[in-house]
Amino acid sequence: MSELESWNDHAAKTAILDFVTAVTTAGGPEFAPPAGRVATFDNDGTLWVEQPMPPQFDFVFRKWAEEVEADPSLAAREPYKAIIEQDAAFFEGVATQDPQVVATLLQAFPRSWSGTTPEAFEAQVREWLRTIKQPKFGVPYVQLVYKPMLELLAYLQAHEFRVFVCSGGGRDFMRVFAEETWGIHKENVIGSAAGYEYTDGGLLRTDEVLGGLALGPGKPEHIFAQTGRLPLFAGGNADVDIEMLASARFALLLAHDDEDREYAYTKAADKSLAKATELDWTVVSMKNDWVTVF
Amino acid sequence: MSELESWNDHAAKTAILDFVTAVTTAGGPEFAPPAGRVATFDNDGTLWVEQPMPPQFDFVFRKWAEEVEADPSLAAREPYKAIIEQDAAFFEGVATQDPQVVATLLQAFPRSWSGTTPEAFEAQVREWLRTIKQPKFGVPYVQLVYKPMLELLAYLQAHEFRVFVCSGGGRDFMRVFAEETWGIHKENVIGSAAGYEYTDGGLLRTDEVLGGLALGPGKPEHIFAQTGRLPLFAGGNADVDIEMLASARFALLLAHDDEDREYAYTKAADKSLAKATELDWTVVSMKNDWVTVF
Repeated sequence: MSELESWNDHAAKTAILDFVTAVTTAGGPEFAPPAGRVATFDNDGTLWVEQPMPPQFDFVFRKWAEEVEADPSLAAREPYKAIIEQDAAFFEGVATQDPQVVATLLQAFPRSWSGTTPEAFEAQVREWLRTIKQPKFGVPYVQLVYKPMLELLAYLQAHEFRVFVCSGGGRDFMRVFAEETWGIHKENVIGSAAGYEYTDGGLLRTDEVLGGLALGPGKPEHIFAQTGRLPLFAGGNADVDIEMLASARFALLLAHDDEDREYAYTKAADKSLAKATELDWTVVSMKNDWVTVF
Repeated sequence: MSELESWNDHAAKTAILDFVTAVTTAGGPEFAPPAGRVATFDNDGTLWVEQPMPPQFDFVFRKWAEEVEADPSLAAREPYKAIIEQDAAFFEGVATQDPQVVATLLQAFPRSWSGTTPEAFEAQVREWLRTIKQPKFGVPYVQLVYKPMLELLAYLQAHEFRVFVCSGGGRDFMRVFAEETWGIHKENVIGSAAGYEYTDGGLLRTDEVLGGLALGPGKPEHIFAQTGRLPLFAGGNADVDIEMLASARFALLLAHDDEDREYAYTKAADKSLAKATELDWTVVSMKNDWVTVF
């Protein structure tokens, strides 16, 4: 069991190992041919810290604050107004990935990035990754990826799973750090997606969002569109992951119950925790199942 | 040079081997790290026979003929009318993948497959693959994949390229046979794409076409959306491949000049052949460069 060394030898780890053994045992009753071994993971709160808000919003809100500085008239308009005034209800909706709040934000994205080249966007994300620190831990967000989850991704890959991340967050945002951080190629990153126009020999971002948000039922929809399959193994941590987890043969739900080492909260996760009981998903207690968090 | 054994030792083969050697030689001036080794290939006319028309249209037109039989009133409407009357201009547009004709066809697809499950669609495609024969060769279409191209896909994969197919044809249609025919996973197939709705625990096709057709500029757009990159190596055979080929570092254009072993035609390929001269692409003569075709 040395592959998952940051996991305590409790029920969750045993369930993962048993499932992977069963689907990779040739001739066994649960054997899954390698072609079908697709694993999908949510990102925010599943692979890295999502408190006090999903990291990409920190990136976006800083960009919008710069825009208000350049054009103060924007301060009277949403979502700029809510950000400047630190509107509590708005930030609550952001923290819980409330689909309506997320949709409002997505409508504002085109104003900021329409016409941007992929290279320019990547440079902005890299600068943010390098310089901005998460408020509780005082380190860049990319250092707050959960070590036990990285071990799990590697363990699945070692057993011929193709690992994908499927997040409601921006596909292009995640693709900037996917390869160096998760060890998965950009094409294995699925998320809410801007359109692009190929013109004069290069790509420019448009103001479209293609295929809807990768939240709730949008997760299996985006996963099928990208991979042609539904997952054999899926991991999530919130209500917006329910459909993805329900579409998989093995579902893992991460419970944030570790106030000391990370955060303890069930907001926006109550329904998924109830569903885990109902459908016998494997619930991972950050506090009890993980030897180390980062 | 044994990997490409169906290729004659002429300039095209040499150019391919030289390029792959250059980008895989660590420390060399043209070295490309494995993460960036994305290769993309058109399908119709590049990986398999596209005459007398792209094979998927045979599949679609048979479906529509069945629909007319069930509901004769459809015979008065396009595109059913053109098919029943064997309208020459219409079939010319189909054969050349004329974007307007293809767009008309795509508008008709939803009528036939909206509300279909992926499993039901796959069963229809498999039945067609098994039973229908190409008129000139008298064998199922899937036996008319070019052997030299299969060797090329395998050669690139052996050099850590991730190989994708990007066709104006239907993504889900190609995904049915991609793994057994090309040796690439479903997620490496890019094409014109229906929407899907996840409802009651399953997926149903909608009447949307997401992200536009994967033709012309739509090819690099779809490739970037799926992979996060533009190709290092690309292969095509027609005018609708120009933008994809121009976006790659190495471009291969297949010329159909072998009336005896396949077909000889330049229709819908004249501009791409001119572009090949202008931009110094590698042109493959089916007649002279290939020892065997199938």
